Amino acid sequence: MSLSEFDLIQDYFAGLGGSREDVILGVGDDCALVQVPDGMQLALSIDTLVAGVHFFTDVDPEALGHKALAVNLSDLAAMGASPAWATLALTLPHADSGWLAAFSRGFAELAKRFGVQLIGGDTTRGPLAVTVQIHGLLPSGQGMRRSGARAGDLIYVTGKLGDASLALHHRLQGESWRCVESALRMRLERPEPRVEVGLALREIASAAIDISDGLIADLGHILQASGCGAQIRLDRVPVSEPVRVAVESGAGWELPLSAGDDYELCFTLPPAQRQTVARLSESLGLPITRIGRIETTPGLRCVHANGDLWRPPIPGYEHFRSHDPRNGS
Amino acid sequence: MSLSEFDLIQDYFAGLGGSREDVILGVGDDCALVQVPDGMQLALSIDTLVAGVHFFTDVDPEALGHKALAVNLSDLAAMGASPAWATLALTLPHADSGWLAAFSRGFAELAKRFGVQLIGGDTTRGPLAVTVQIHGLLPSGQGMRRSGARAGDLIYVTGKLGDASLALHHRLQGESWRCVESALRMRLERPEPRVEVGLALREIASAAIDISDGLIADLGHILQASGCGAQIRLDRVPVSEPVRVAVESGAGWELPLSAGDDYELCFTLPPAQRQTVARLSESLGLPITRIGRIETTPGLRCVHANGDLWRPPIPGYEHFRSHDPRNGS
Repeated sequence: MSLSEFDLIQDYFAGLGGSREDVILGVGDDCALVQVPDGMQLALSIDTLVAGVHFFTDVDPEALGHKALAVNLSDLAAMGASPAWATLALTLPHADSGWLAAFSRGFAELAKRFGVQLIGGDTTRGPLAVTVQIHGLLPSGQGMRRSGARAGDLIYVTGKLGDASLALHHRLQGESWRCVESALRMRLERPEPRVEVGLALREIASAAIDISDGLIADLGHILQASGCGAQIRLDRVPVSEPVRVAVESGAGWELPLSAGDDYELCFTLPPAQRQTVARLSESLGLPITRIGRIETTPGLRCVHANGDLWRPPIPGYEHFRSHDPRNGS
Repeated sequence: MSLSEFDLIQDYFAGLGGSREDVILGVGDDCALVQVPDGMQLALSIDTLVAGVHFFTDVDPEALGHKALAVNLSDLAAMGASPAWATLALTLPHADSGWLAAFSRGFAELAKRFGVQLIGGDTTRGPLAVTVQIHGLLPSGQGMRRSGARAGDLIYVTGKLGDASLALHHRLQGESWRCVESALRMRLERPEPRVEVGLALREIASAAIDISDGLIADLGHILQASGCGAQIRLDRVPVSEPVRVAVESGAGWELPLSAGDDYELCFTLPPAQRQTVARLSESLGLPITRIGRIETTPGLRCVHANGDLWRPPIPGYEHFRSHDPRNGS
């Protein structure tokens, strides 16, 4: 395929997603031009998904289009920013119009839902990889950072943890997708960015992060940035029924706590704001669960209901990747 | 290498380049936060360079760091925007500290020179590729688009055309870099983005583009977007001595006209602004050469000094890539 055909792909993506009045010039010139409203700051994040590392090479392209945008929207959610514009750098071994149509459908559906307009991009030939940069807006001086947690704050997580990891685990054990519960697969392939939660928390949470590398690692980033420690109660960690069964039948708590890809939010909250979060959870129909408390003593302590300390065998995402064929060579 | 080691690479790049007061939060949280000054619009562009496609796999990493930023700065130059912030998505097969140090040195040197701060990024494992997104600032309502050329406008190019292509041609013929004139190699590996020219032209040029796909293709974009045609004079096209020799000894005019990678600017100008450009050329010590004129009749006509029409054998960049081993499979 010639390079000019790749240019046509770019045209294919022009204007994908929502249509926004603050876009002065979208896809098709040397640069896109946008207008940041007065009093607002720009929040931005860039993420790459690589075939064989972050997704299986036989990935459903519609799901990949969704996920490439979702992981970026999740970063905006963790900051409490309103989604605005995206750019897309897509590297493809060859151009397959069916694949491209499905990819752009998945991307566009999520983009429209959150009012995101695709304003620029680059399409190149090479090993399959997708880089998305997302741009969001925040009132000046706001934005939830990782560094604001204080001793006494409560620790919450949205949704349930470990579903994506369990789906991945099944697939890595050689099961075909047909044998993996579709709800679990959805959680791995089509994570739902918690944008509304992030916006609602912006003025009340003291710190926030999205759980892309596992709760232990990501809460660890908050503790490190905030210079404090924490205790969480394992019996309060929200998990689905399949994850509960897996935990009890040998996978252990590292399944929901150390594995990534859930894209839920973890945040800390001054206790006075407790009722606000309870009402938010009810109004969104989404579990938002208090799992622990920020403490002065550095380090993260995970305890069972009886008070016994649980030690994570391996504190992070890597554990689940050491035998992960998606890693490639 | 584990993923957390890749996180460390990211830390390695934190704060690279200039230090800017409009950066509220740089590398290290879920998002970067920046403040766009009142009255300014944001110009942005994203570009990917893939190993084996856009550069040789044995590339000098310092040159790659330079070029990955330079091709993006060139897009800002074509818009007339002031460089501000960059994000970097780097995909690496493995982490080599010497390679990374050289890459970041090349990136940082150019970033500092243009006051660009690296504010975010993502480092992933996979086949070598570099994606940079650049962000620049423009007074609201300004910015040189491709669509503003009008019949009677003069057509200019900066610098000289074809050096990068000639260097590539030598290398593709099996010559080692030692045998390629170093000035030519520099032009391929370390293009100089014409940012100052773009800023100076912002209020006087009617249209502009950077020459990444060859003059014929890129001027063609201006003509198409502006709904007009043009005539250029081959004897006025500025070329270096090695390119002139190559053109005359068989490579033909397609060498400087149809090959990309020069990253010079092509722009159109109302004739009344002619003296301004002459002064600009003198003050910058950079050739800015008038090569033709915008006409009403659609299409691009290239003519010899005697008025004979020259027909490009193949109108674009692809020609030089059809046998290009950088293309991979």
